[in-house]
Amino acid sequence: MVKDLSHLLSEESKGRKPSPLKSAFKYYGKEDIVFLGGGLPLADYFPWEKIVAYSPEPPFEDGIGAQPSVTGKSTISEVHKHKVEEFDIPLARSLQYGHTQGNPELIDFLKEHTKMIHNVPYEEWDLCLTIGNTQSWEACIRSFCNPGDSIFIEEYTFPSAVETARNLGVNFVPMKMDAFGIIPSALAELLENWDKSKPLPKLLYTICTGQNPTGSSLGYERRKELYDLACKYDFVIIEDEPYYFLQMTEYQSGKEEEIKTPSHEEFLKSLVKSFISMDTEGRVLRLDSFSKVLAPGTRVGWIVGQAALLERFVRLHEVSIQAPSGFSQTIVQALLGRWGQSGYVDWLIAMRKEYSIKRDFTIKCLEKYMPKEVVSWTPPIAGMFFTILLDASKHPDFATKYDSDPLKVEDAVYEQGLKDGCLMIPGSWFVAPNRKNTSGTTFFYRGTYAAVPLDTLGVGLERFAKAVKSEFGL
Amino acid sequence: MVKDLSHLLSEESKGRKPSPLKSAFKYYGKEDIVFLGGGLPLADYFPWEKIVAYSPEPPFEDGIGAQPSVTGKSTISEVHKHKVEEFDIPLARSLQYGHTQGNPELIDFLKEHTKMIHNVPYEEWDLCLTIGNTQSWEACIRSFCNPGDSIFIEEYTFPSAVETARNLGVNFVPMKMDAFGIIPSALAELLENWDKSKPLPKLLYTICTGQNPTGSSLGYERRKELYDLACKYDFVIIEDEPYYFLQMTEYQSGKEEEIKTPSHEEFLKSLVKSFISMDTEGRVLRLDSFSKVLAPGTRVGWIVGQAALLERFVRLHEVSIQAPSGFSQTIVQALLGRWGQSGYVDWLIAMRKEYSIKRDFTIKCLEKYMPKEVVSWTPPIAGMFFTILLDASKHPDFATKYDSDPLKVEDAVYEQGLKDGCLMIPGSWFVAPNRKNTSGTTFFYRGTYAAVPLDTLGVGLERFAKAVKSEFGL
Repeated sequence: MVKDLSHLLSEESKGRKPSPLKSAFKYYGKEDIVFLGGGLPLADYFPWEKIVAYSPEPPFEDGIGAQPSVTGKSTISEVHKHKVEEFDIPLARSLQYGHTQGNPELIDFLKEHTKMIHNVPYEEWDLCLTIGNTQSWEACIRSFCNPGDSIFIEEYTFPSAVETARNLGVNFVPMKMDAFGIIPSALAELLENWDKSKPLPKLLYTICTGQNPTGSSLGYERRKELYDLACKYDFVIIEDEPYYFLQMTEYQSGKEEEIKTPSHEEFLKSLVKSFISMDTEGRVLRLDSFSKVLAPGTRVGWIVGQAALLERFVRLHEVSIQAPSGFSQTIVQALLGRWGQSGYVDWLIAMRKEYSIKRDFTIKCLEKYMPKEVVSWTPPIAGMFFTILLDASKHPDFATKYDSDPLKVEDAVYEQGLKDGCLMIPGSWFVAPNRKNTSGTTFFYRGTYAAVPLDTLGVGLERFAKAVKSEFGL
Repeated sequence: MVKDLSHLLSEESKGRKPSPLKSAFKYYGKEDIVFLGGGLPLADYFPWEKIVAYSPEPPFEDGIGAQPSVTGKSTISEVHKHKVEEFDIPLARSLQYGHTQGNPELIDFLKEHTKMIHNVPYEEWDLCLTIGNTQSWEACIRSFCNPGDSIFIEEYTFPSAVETARNLGVNFVPMKMDAFGIIPSALAELLENWDKSKPLPKLLYTICTGQNPTGSSLGYERRKELYDLACKYDFVIIEDEPYYFLQMTEYQSGKEEEIKTPSHEEFLKSLVKSFISMDTEGRVLRLDSFSKVLAPGTRVGWIVGQAALLERFVRLHEVSIQAPSGFSQTIVQALLGRWGQSGYVDWLIAMRKEYSIKRDFTIKCLEKYMPKEVVSWTPPIAGMFFTILLDASKHPDFATKYDSDPLKVEDAVYEQGLKDGCLMIPGSWFVAPNRKNTSGTTFFYRGTYAAVPLDTLGVGLERFAKAVKSEFGL
């Protein structure tokens, strides 16, 4: 049963009221009322009559990177100021004020998509557009946290997510992780031994699939254990899931060439169960985004969660962002409407294939170039990131030149990498505030296979391996 | 000389740091470095190859509402994933992460525009894109105000602007107004008699041209006096100026038909001098927006002000909105680039003409329909709003049925208006918090001539006049 979680809201969020003008807007558009109430410019004055966008056409057999000019097939989205296609958002509406939650056509598409993927197990869920997951997360912080409140975060996490909250007087409580993400038993222990004089954290923030920076992914069992802890200790889980659809099959050494295109059914079945899909109490907020699957510059994300909580987000948006760009909503929905749910799944499958190829190539390069005496890795099963783990104690000058400080070795290899012509980010840059160091002499680097083509990726990894070898005297 | 105003920043804003990853990003794009540092999807995977937008073509002799299909003239903006026109923002960049401040092409256009219109009198000014003025204002509040801080606001103001700040523990100090906006002498008196045990307000928030809700506009002399007070008492002026380009010539009864199209020079000279144009100390933040001159759904606004303050806004945006939509930036800049500064001024002149026609028609209707015994007005010289002032003491049942309470008469006429088929917003809905009522028996309604065509406007005003008459027994 869905719980009332309003006691967890921040003072800022609790007190937000709808605009007093709202009571008048119920008369807007009524035939027998001349509405002189709102400062809305006439759509006649919007200087865009028509927009035509050219996109690839499902089922993307030539890959998602293939240009329509090469394949000869395009999805052409022609949208007008006034409505033509049933599923389109006409420019006269998307470019006007209103629809803080999002235009109904796009909301409907995303709700149908959400049902298909997550099958949220309660009735009273809703969906609200945002400007992407960074803004969604900011809205979560502002909606739940008063200064002095605590939140759980992964012990290595996205620094911007920390920076969003850090300066608002929020107290970070890091959660221990291993190669497969948060360790539920360690969190359970932390909660059992919680100092009862201090309030429990209100939120658990996790990038649970293809985690940034570790590349780890939480499996179903761990998610279930964490969800049970959320219910027991009354906190909200924020699942920040930009990489959810970049899930791949497990890496199998030597089988890189055999990437198959699954059926829709196989694909949907292969996806890890999300927190929201097991959320019987309505205590999960799922942050989704087009940034990694269509393009970051759409600046369109969305939150899925219980309606009573999302209403608080809409109130916040009314007095801040108002709504995502109308151009973005119209153009994205024009494409999704033409592709349909099925074409969109085709796209997601084709995208997964691209990332699988890149992941496999990356691991093959690591196997080929890296000195296994000092470097190890766990092939990621999702996302854009991989990490390589190094052991500083294997460095011949560890105790002397580097004062037995692994971070000094980490820095030296980073600098040597730059000299040799490849940049990977030192793991220590992602350390969560208040984390107790339990890594001993190991340290890691985060790399990505997302941002460069395969050949460049190979060159980079060979260079970084060279830097490691020369630093470690191998 | 530009002043260091960092002492006015909020604790939240003072402490914001750039992302640690930023130090790595200086290597991004360097030829000799393979950059595996950032989780950026390849632009090859963005499913938009080309966008074509159809817009009216300067100089808009047939009016801005005329469709290109009618005039036969279109500005066709064709933008590609990779760069074609020098002034275009290619989709590969606008749809990618980055450029929190805004893409350089659009920033450059707006800076040139700002120089032409405002000629900011110091060197170190900058410009930062936002998601529109509501978000700009939210960013101002979060950047300057700690809980308990005070801000000056107009005694009648936009309720959403209040709601943005209200729940953050900000104390509102209303400023007295008349038909021409804030009364500087009243503010000077307030400041002279300020209780020295309490800190002075940090911000003065004003919608100074075509004010919402009163429709009043601050003239040059008043602006100068207010600016001098800001310097003397060390506060920042936030000029929220969505209606700046909806400035008209003064209304002259009987001369409604003679609206001329001014030359560019005449037009530019006719615009009231902004606060930023007299800002020798760098203590004005100007909030500008495309919402009222192009379309609200662009969700693109911008702030002009001293660079050191704007840097704080960029840090906030990095961990919240990131940047305005890439589609919006590309499409807006594609149009502005093709129109050029001159074509954009043509558009602004043509827009001013439309609003002048509507304003004149509105006043003509008021003159024709309203009972002058109880209703008065000051023709607005800018913006979308007009107000009608009523005197409740002229109501025959004021002392009896309405307990000598003007708000009860205000409500009765509002309700009668709805019955008669026209909605205008009661002025009391716009009263700022903490305002002391000094209006005696008068009250007002806010109407807009923006949102409806002329014929509907006429019908509405006739209906509302009927409601007033029937309520007042005339």
